Amino acid sequence: MASVKKMGEREVIETIFKSLSRPSSMPIPFGDDVSGVDIGHNLIAVLKTDMLVGKTDVPLSMSFWQAARKAVVMNISDFAAKGVKPVALLVALGLPLDFLEKDVKQLADGLNAGAREYYAYVLGGDTNEASDLIICCSLFGIRKRNLIILRSGARPNDIVAVTGSFGKSAAGLRILLENSSVLPMARKTFLDAVLMPKARLKEGLALSQASVVSASIDSSDGLAWSLHEIGRASDVGFVVDNLPVAPEVLRFAKHNKIDPVELVLYGGEEYELIITIPPRLWKKASHVVEQVGGSLIRIGKVTEETGMFLQWMEKTITIKPRGWEHFRGRK
Amino acid sequence: MASVKKMGEREVIETIFKSLSRPSSMPIPFGDDVSGVDIGHNLIAVLKTDMLVGKTDVPLSMSFWQAARKAVVMNISDFAAKGVKPVALLVALGLPLDFLEKDVKQLADGLNAGAREYYAYVLGGDTNEASDLIICCSLFGIRKRNLIILRSGARPNDIVAVTGSFGKSAAGLRILLENSSVLPMARKTFLDAVLMPKARLKEGLALSQASVVSASIDSSDGLAWSLHEIGRASDVGFVVDNLPVAPEVLRFAKHNKIDPVELVLYGGEEYELIITIPPRLWKKASHVVEQVGGSLIRIGKVTEETGMFLQWMEKTITIKPRGWEHFRGRK
Repeated sequence: MASVKKMGEREVIETIFKSLSRPSSMPIPFGDDVSGVDIGHNLIAVLKTDMLVGKTDVPLSMSFWQAARKAVVMNISDFAAKGVKPVALLVALGLPLDFLEKDVKQLADGLNAGAREYYAYVLGGDTNEASDLIICCSLFGIRKRNLIILRSGARPNDIVAVTGSFGKSAAGLRILLENSSVLPMARKTFLDAVLMPKARLKEGLALSQASVVSASIDSSDGLAWSLHEIGRASDVGFVVDNLPVAPEVLRFAKHNKIDPVELVLYGGEEYELIITIPPRLWKKASHVVEQVGGSLIRIGKVTEETGMFLQWMEKTITIKPRGWEHFRGRK
Repeated sequence: MASVKKMGEREVIETIFKSLSRPSSMPIPFGDDVSGVDIGHNLIAVLKTDMLVGKTDVPLSMSFWQAARKAVVMNISDFAAKGVKPVALLVALGLPLDFLEKDVKQLADGLNAGAREYYAYVLGGDTNEASDLIICCSLFGIRKRNLIILRSGARPNDIVAVTGSFGKSAAGLRILLENSSVLPMARKTFLDAVLMPKARLKEGLALSQASVVSASIDSSDGLAWSLHEIGRASDVGFVVDNLPVAPEVLRFAKHNKIDPVELVLYGGEEYELIITIPPRLWKKASHVVEQVGGSLIRIGKVTEETGMFLQWMEKTITIKPRGWEHFRGRK
């Protein structure tokens, strides 16, 4: 009999879905970044829960304040990808018995800071004794049905774009976990990417409001994995011809003799949005994102063929469905 | 510096609340059984999160199916106390790496059964690796603002009532954890109270719809503790002159030489509703509960004095703020 370690997160989730009754109306399908309930007047109540576990999600050098804030940002990022403004946050905590009062205060301050950074309030929660530090956030918001961006709307020839460059978190994790060497100037950039992640909420809300995006996902499971998710949900493929690698990540990779493609495609723990845009709406999409202080990087296009390919250094490389997966670790 | 073990759950929660920003409108105050967001049209989106942790909340003889169902019922019971129908459930799971596929299936079936038993659907969630089994449920529903029953509305001379007798879970836990002896006929009743708890949702919805209740709470932290919570929120006291002890619990207590008052007041893990009712509405309240197949037991009355007293066996006993508290265990 297989254990969850052998099954991996995807198979665990599929096993669970098989047991669940489906309501007659489901405005957001099982397995998208968030869940939704039709509340009438063309409005959807949007719900999300995501758990941060100390031993797998919190590097040693991350403070409790940062861990709590990150737990919030993880949830907000999914709302951002769907174009939904978060309103209320509830938090269930699991704390080891020897957890200190000052650290409880740090957690609470971090939760509040994360919520307020993205307009939301922490309204309630629950505390429990647990062996690990557990921070389980649940988020609530409301959005017009037709403004919610699903994973399933990508069409052949749509432009694929991202809201920022990739690889910084992967580099930061290698510095923290493997003591990789880094130039002093890049060090802070990379560590900030891990310790102080930002959700692209302004960008997601602007894109949703302008109705310019055909599909969207956040990149927390890695660029490659997330592209595969959109591909699966939309029944399409991708050709990525402009790898969104940050210049400092290229230097870091060279310096440490790591393949930059590995850092960019398979790193994970990044909170950019990956979106697809019909070509005629590209200009408008770029414009609305710039208006809120962000930018879109065009990285490739959607194909009818369901394969996933990267054109890089005059070669064509298959993008594999790899990334961070709970129970298995990196695979 | 104090640890959470020394602080206890209440102090941990108060420390957290101090850090949280308050929104300008808060239809349900911090610390009530659920949280709420005003969504216009006189409607409140009602939210709840509650975490079940294997090592503290799941007796050894409880199956994973029962543990998952219980995690749902814990949340539904709070909705029941507020008079809110649950609509959607999200579940974040923490699973040890050696957790088996068949047990994942049991969890999923138990979650689905618990939700469907009370009209709700499981719409999504998250899975993670953790040292303990963690089942963190978040629940969503919508209710008219004036039909939500808070903890804070109890007034002097209101009748205090409960939806069922107490002590069965406490007896069941003693059988499971301490091997207390029990008559065969009562054994199943007591074990069912622990392993297959029921939320009083029909009763709560009927009472809310009829607008007959001034304050309400669920009794999961124990009768004594929950009375103190209502007392604190409403700034009142109670005299309990009719201890709601189940006859089989009286026999069990006598047989095992335990004080039945201990089992009834301080047992916890029971999911009855504790409500206060203006005397002129008592008949109507009893009637609407009977119409949905339940019954109300009058146990005492609300007093202006903030003390809590039990009249039992011709003595007056102080009801202490004791019960189950996370981090401290029974106190």
